[in-house]
Amino acid sequence: MQIGMIGLGKMGYQLSLNLVDKEHDVVAFDVNEESMKKISLMGVQTSDSIEQLVSKLSKPRTVWLMVPAGNATQSAFEQLFPHLEEGDRIIDGGNAHYKDSLKRNEECELKGIYFFDCGTSGGVEGSRNGACTMIGGNEEEFKQIEPIFQDISVENGYLYSGKAGSGHFLKMVHNGIEYGMMQAIAEGFDLLDKSPFDYNYEQVARVWNNGSVIRSWLMELTENAFSKDENLEGIKGIMHSSGEGKWTVETALDLQTAAPVITLALMMRYRSLEDDTFTGKVVAALRNEFGGHAVEKK
Amino acid sequence: MQIGMIGLGKMGYQLSLNLVDKEHDVVAFDVNEESMKKISLMGVQTSDSIEQLVSKLSKPRTVWLMVPAGNATQSAFEQLFPHLEEGDRIIDGGNAHYKDSLKRNEECELKGIYFFDCGTSGGVEGSRNGACTMIGGNEEEFKQIEPIFQDISVENGYLYSGKAGSGHFLKMVHNGIEYGMMQAIAEGFDLLDKSPFDYNYEQVARVWNNGSVIRSWLMELTENAFSKDENLEGIKGIMHSSGEGKWTVETALDLQTAAPVITLALMMRYRSLEDDTFTGKVVAALRNEFGGHAVEKK
Repeated sequence: MQIGMIGLGKMGYQLSLNLVDKEHDVVAFDVNEESMKKISLMGVQTSDSIEQLVSKLSKPRTVWLMVPAGNATQSAFEQLFPHLEEGDRIIDGGNAHYKDSLKRNEECELKGIYFFDCGTSGGVEGSRNGACTMIGGNEEEFKQIEPIFQDISVENGYLYSGKAGSGHFLKMVHNGIEYGMMQAIAEGFDLLDKSPFDYNYEQVARVWNNGSVIRSWLMELTENAFSKDENLEGIKGIMHSSGEGKWTVETALDLQTAAPVITLALMMRYRSLEDDTFTGKVVAALRNEFGGHAVEKK
Repeated sequence: MQIGMIGLGKMGYQLSLNLVDKEHDVVAFDVNEESMKKISLMGVQTSDSIEQLVSKLSKPRTVWLMVPAGNATQSAFEQLFPHLEEGDRIIDGGNAHYKDSLKRNEECELKGIYFFDCGTSGGVEGSRNGACTMIGGNEEEFKQIEPIFQDISVENGYLYSGKAGSGHFLKMVHNGIEYGMMQAIAEGFDLLDKSPFDYNYEQVARVWNNGSVIRSWLMELTENAFSKDENLEGIKGIMHSSGEGKWTVETALDLQTAAPVITLALMMRYRSLEDDTFTGKVVAALRNEFGGHAVEKK
């Protein structure tokens, strides 16, 4: 199929190459000219603007947005929207908040444009060689673009998940689960580290990846990480987050759902951002107030 | 090798068959005569008592204990111990507490018996067709029994983990991680269930198992479970636990290690055992006391 690709960042770039491998005809646009030059050498057609990109596509057009969630997605959507017509399709493959996707879908519906929200998992490597995709949107129309997802995903790795919004919701929850799983794995290794035993963490992760109940891709990544730096001495334990865990927790609050482990996994990331905490100062001060317990001075 | 197997429960029974498949010579004992009859039909030699089992083995003997942790293991150990001699080996493949294994190892050392604590993961299916094993004990002597673990484990699925106690410690932490991972997965599906979307959970688990970051054996088991009962309507959400999660949390307390997600996963299991909670009553009563908020009467 012919696909317009807006956004040639880490994910969009690899995805474009993946699509070209599968003999799709990709027309790409990115504000970054370097990426455009680079990808044009790989057989991808480029365009100077979103308007020009649209003009190069035959109707009904299919445009894939692969830009960061939030302002970047909104801006790309706004630039793209006026140039599309009834019957055209937008696939948002980024990590948009599902409520934003619901809004964009409403706007699209008014104009007869089909909006698909596609959650994409598997990282950069997945984008290139086979991702996991979860797609929400019009079910009938989905059949028209299904070959795209079949081609870019691993076997059994795509799912039409229901009406618009359901794809990004699913991806959000996937990331929330990921936070909890990662924190559980990490706490386990912390216990090994404080144990009276002398483990080789790479070997531990390796044996856990072979036949154990907790074998998983995350444990494979754990094995990789320890193979590069056996005690992770080269890095600090600062756990950044890019927003989907926070959305999952906010959604749990909205839906009055108890999700304590996912929530706490997020909170532990926030804790890791601080060397010292005001919480710690307050508790230390209170212990001193009521019991005369020593505080450590700055 | 010649191996004495004490305990023909779910795990010991399958493990014996696994050993026999790999051409080891197994002499088994269990208090349950049914299991003994059953396994003797499968080509495993049986014995009428632990004493007789020991007498059937040539020196240095290798005896595998595969009985439930706690009293059963202690009782089997006490019955076995007097019949063994210097140079013999005990492998405890059950889920003993690592501190109990440390004590048993000390007793064994005094008599020149080699004690190995072997954490075994992978469930019943793993015992039969390839487990994941983590073994602590004397490193030199381990080499003598290494072929056993090579044979009963999946490829790359066994690890000599260090001195005695380290195998059971590792298995305990493995189970703690398992609690956290399971709770994270479950909270995610709970969010899907309360979402405005209409997901097919089996399909969701299936797509997450193919190319996503959270693909894992536990997610495969999730897929299986939903394939049998699409909304799990046939079962109650009561989460029992068999003790290793509790030990992990107790160990985290002993080692002053922050393991909040594993801890909370355990607490949520306890919460699930109660239909109503006294905590709930206290909070409802307090809201009523200070704010006149309605309470729900019994």
